[in-house]
Amino acid sequence: MLQYALLHLFGYAVSMDDLKSFRQVDSITPGHPEAHDTPGVEVTTGPLGQGFANAVGLAIAQAHTAAVFNKPGYELVNNHTYVFFGDGCAMEGIASEAASTAGHLQLGNLIAIYDDNHISIDGDTKCAFTEDVMKRFEAYGWHTQHVENGDSDLEGIEAAIAKAKEVKDKPSVIKLTTTIGFGSLLAGTGGVHGNPLKADDIKQVKEKFGFDPEKTFVVPQEVYDMYHKHAAEGAAAEQEWNKMFEKYGQEYKDLHADFARRLTRDLPEGWQNKLPTYKPTDAAVASRKLSESVLEAIHDVIPELLSGSADLTGSNNTRWKKAVDFQPPSLGIGEWSGRYIRYGVREHAMAAIMNGLSAYGTIIPAGGTFLNFVSYAAGAVRLSSLSHQRVIYVATHDSIGLGEDGPTHQPIETLAHFRALPNMMVWRPADGNETSAAYYMALTSKQTPSILALTRQNLPQLEGSTIEKAIKGGYVVLEDKEANVTLVATGSEVSLALESVKVLKEKNLKARVVSMPCTEIFDAQDKSYQLEVIPDGIPTLSVEVMSTLGWEKYSHEQFGLNRFGASGPYKEVYKKFEFTPEGIAKRAALTVDFYKDVKPLRSPLNRAFQQLI
Amino acid sequence: MLQYALLHLFGYAVSMDDLKSFRQVDSITPGHPEAHDTPGVEVTTGPLGQGFANAVGLAIAQAHTAAVFNKPGYELVNNHTYVFFGDGCAMEGIASEAASTAGHLQLGNLIAIYDDNHISIDGDTKCAFTEDVMKRFEAYGWHTQHVENGDSDLEGIEAAIAKAKEVKDKPSVIKLTTTIGFGSLLAGTGGVHGNPLKADDIKQVKEKFGFDPEKTFVVPQEVYDMYHKHAAEGAAAEQEWNKMFEKYGQEYKDLHADFARRLTRDLPEGWQNKLPTYKPTDAAVASRKLSESVLEAIHDVIPELLSGSADLTGSNNTRWKKAVDFQPPSLGIGEWSGRYIRYGVREHAMAAIMNGLSAYGTIIPAGGTFLNFVSYAAGAVRLSSLSHQRVIYVATHDSIGLGEDGPTHQPIETLAHFRALPNMMVWRPADGNETSAAYYMALTSKQTPSILALTRQNLPQLEGSTIEKAIKGGYVVLEDKEANVTLVATGSEVSLALESVKVLKEKNLKARVVSMPCTEIFDAQDKSYQLEVIPDGIPTLSVEVMSTLGWEKYSHEQFGLNRFGASGPYKEVYKKFEFTPEGIAKRAALTVDFYKDVKPLRSPLNRAFQQLI
Repeated sequence: MLQYALLHLFGYAVSMDDLKSFRQVDSITPGHPEAHDTPGVEVTTGPLGQGFANAVGLAIAQAHTAAVFNKPGYELVNNHTYVFFGDGCAMEGIASEAASTAGHLQLGNLIAIYDDNHISIDGDTKCAFTEDVMKRFEAYGWHTQHVENGDSDLEGIEAAIAKAKEVKDKPSVIKLTTTIGFGSLLAGTGGVHGNPLKADDIKQVKEKFGFDPEKTFVVPQEVYDMYHKHAAEGAAAEQEWNKMFEKYGQEYKDLHADFARRLTRDLPEGWQNKLPTYKPTDAAVASRKLSESVLEAIHDVIPELLSGSADLTGSNNTRWKKAVDFQPPSLGIGEWSGRYIRYGVREHAMAAIMNGLSAYGTIIPAGGTFLNFVSYAAGAVRLSSLSHQRVIYVATHDSIGLGEDGPTHQPIETLAHFRALPNMMVWRPADGNETSAAYYMALTSKQTPSILALTRQNLPQLEGSTIEKAIKGGYVVLEDKEANVTLVATGSEVSLALESVKVLKEKNLKARVVSMPCTEIFDAQDKSYQLEVIPDGIPTLSVEVMSTLGWEKYSHEQFGLNRFGASGPYKEVYKKFEFTPEGIAKRAALTVDFYKDVKPLRSPLNRAFQQLI
Repeated sequence: MLQYALLHLFGYAVSMDDLKSFRQVDSITPGHPEAHDTPGVEVTTGPLGQGFANAVGLAIAQAHTAAVFNKPGYELVNNHTYVFFGDGCAMEGIASEAASTAGHLQLGNLIAIYDDNHISIDGDTKCAFTEDVMKRFEAYGWHTQHVENGDSDLEGIEAAIAKAKEVKDKPSVIKLTTTIGFGSLLAGTGGVHGNPLKADDIKQVKEKFGFDPEKTFVVPQEVYDMYHKHAAEGAAAEQEWNKMFEKYGQEYKDLHADFARRLTRDLPEGWQNKLPTYKPTDAAVASRKLSESVLEAIHDVIPELLSGSADLTGSNNTRWKKAVDFQPPSLGIGEWSGRYIRYGVREHAMAAIMNGLSAYGTIIPAGGTFLNFVSYAAGAVRLSSLSHQRVIYVATHDSIGLGEDGPTHQPIETLAHFRALPNMMVWRPADGNETSAAYYMALTSKQTPSILALTRQNLPQLEGSTIEKAIKGGYVVLEDKEANVTLVATGSEVSLALESVKVLKEKNLKARVVSMPCTEIFDAQDKSYQLEVIPDGIPTLSVEVMSTLGWEKYSHEQFGLNRFGASGPYKEVYKKFEFTPEGIAKRAALTVDFYKDVKPLRSPLNRAFQQLI
């Protein structure tokens, strides 16, 4: 509510009626602020710790963008990032990860204000949270200050912020010891955390602070005047900035054009011509390596692309050869202008930092971890989707195909999880052309994040795959107009499905094969196209070496793995679970037999009604 | 590998052949240790930070169990818990959360050894991790020590451990500065992290440490002798303990019986008679409150049940009225024998701590958060399943029915995610009897964790629900032998589906209604029972107010929510998305019409082949 009220006072398009509609259906003032819906809300927060980590992302984005674009006399980008956090945020692991990262990166442009009111939902924080938070931040390398009377020592707060701005080589945290519900009869208790004040309490609070207790939803004109004066100063500063930016354009034409373009979120013209393409005769390559080839090919033409990894660089293949690390120059191992971020083993913070990077507007972040450990980041991945951030998750080692690391590292439920998440593209490319297609869609979808599920093991280049086909999300990779069955597979299982066609032939069965690298994009195609791919009249068997959950939407029968995997050389593991041409063919034959009497045999894509979206 | 080798040396059932099968299919020595598969492995680790948090759970379990059972002269439970962690673990948020918790709880029985070799997979930790880890642990309230030569100062290490044991009111961390791959030609580099040494390197390492370089998989007899001597001492101590325990039984008969019973993981006889049951005339109650009633009713008869919440006690309703907090007595707000854990806003650590509590063997942990934030804990929830821990997740505010908090808090993908996770029971009870059934199954399934998805809003008590029916996972709540359609629903949507039957009647359509509180348990029923519930011949429509993903397995058509929700009073939100009797009836009618020509119209439960399990 505080954000909405301030946005209203500063003249953003948040009206008094919007404030009155707080937490009402179809309002722009939902219970927790959403960046995509409310003018002036910069990141979507509410889930604890996310805002803190977003701020680290915004601060990284500022430091990087300034290093790339600022020139003598043209300080285009020089903002500080401010974040408020409470005791609850401070308890969350994601905030710890992000704070450690910010300290390492010496983000002097980041100022965190810690509203330490000693109350969380369970009551006094002494029941669960008695650590020394400021000492912890010192351990991370932060500059710390404490304003003891955070309720009313406004000068002290202002002085602390001024001092924090002077500290250039460390992020700053200012602890305010405050009273929750200051002024209320329930001040200092959990009773004011999420509940509106009672009528008599509102009355006395208003009286206490010099407002008319009989009036509601009224802002005195002098308050509006003061805020609007600030807003006018801001607008004037923006005009100044626009002039400076125009002049910058005369002196630094290319940089100006690049900056202006980035803000539109359009990519440079012709960038897609750099995407690698493959012929069936090209060597078999793991899709994590194919992903690396894409990054190698496009990083020059998409300068806003910042890659990184949660300490799995060599395994995720996320770093192009000549990449410079994003590091404080004083460490001697990178530059502010570097485009490769070492996130450390901090998957959750990585994801939320990427949300901040994307929200800043001048960066497209890509970050790697094993697919199985994208789950560690689930809280922030969800907010990538909800807040429409163009974030790319490079999720390698995508199945039991990772082999020896075993069940603790082998995803089973992960793709079902993220396919069920609205506004998320889950890609599982089968070869080089499909990997390029996945990047094409990930980079050109301005409001949708992507998870690229990539193999550790080598995959052959398919006959019949192209970028153009794959960007439809699903397509026929092997057609047979007389087919008895459609096999629909993803990623590493597509080539196995193709091999199983030969086995089926020996059983006098004909099969056609569909590759379905991204169900979300396939869902967006015309119905007529969809029915060409998965037609009426013959049964469909899906093949994917993890949970079958959700495949019933695209297939009559499902071959998958609804149990945990096994540790061993990957070919042995595949064999154990019958993910072989023979294993697929056996199930395809059973599928044909099972559906032989059903009339009409409809494609599973035919539905009785449309889903709400 | 170190764990397996030590288990072998100490005489656990890990043979030399098992060691030779390291990371091979069907071995008991998978790439990362799994508690369920390998004798002597106490918790399943590998995913970073989990082991650290498991250790905090084991230490809590020790402190609690000692407080309950130890008596003068009978120190039944007095073990320390030791955990090794590396730089990668130290970076993970889950470890930060767990360390803060352990410091708050003053767990003097916990000794963590920090293998600080300055190398993670990305190379030197200076690229991402430059914080002062010991200072951070001090901030958490830990006792810290540093052994500078962790490679070979064995006396220093032993002295540090001895000192740590003396510290009774704080957990201890001992930082060992070490060299990764000590002795190898690649010592001090990331090259020895996950890769076997090359032949020449193995040779020189063996020579360096006085082994015969030509021999492999050989343990000198004097080494076996030394370890077996230790093992024999352990076995003798166990005999002593058994004697003491027998004597304890003479003096403390009930406690002895309780302790012995807990170790079998059986529940006390007749406990289930305490489960609340409801009649249709009973008041409508939110299932989070129904869950509270279960805890209130059973906590006395199941003394091993330890509840808790990640700072949402009043919302999760996880605390029985007379509960005593588990706290260090010095804080004055609880006791070691307390059975309510204040986890703080630390969902991921809570889950991993619960895995440790369960692994200890004398405790059944239940912990609350909003269903949406079980996702923050996904990494540890997965290990509850993989390691067969009886852990209960009390996941309230289970849908858009939470209302005003809005989309940031409203689960859409969450149930699909956890239904896709093997060995996890996801329960979404529709009323009081089903809530009792969920607890019955959660408590009696010794090797399977459960997520109980519970409403914030009130639910009517259904006519036709009983515990006996509900523990089958799915059952007919309203039968009609002439039905045109089966409606299958869960939780808050079951009563809506029942109301829609009246609306359908006006359209001259007859419907039967199935409640499906737990698909995983329904899957385990006989096929003939399953087909009674979801029969051939008429179409089935599923109704659940979140992602439809996976419901195709149980229904021909699906009514759900494949988009994010909305902030508002919950009835308004339900109406917006047409989750009303009319909205359901409309889709049921479309479903009947759509399938009228399909012959034979099979139940979706009929499949062409069985899944591998």
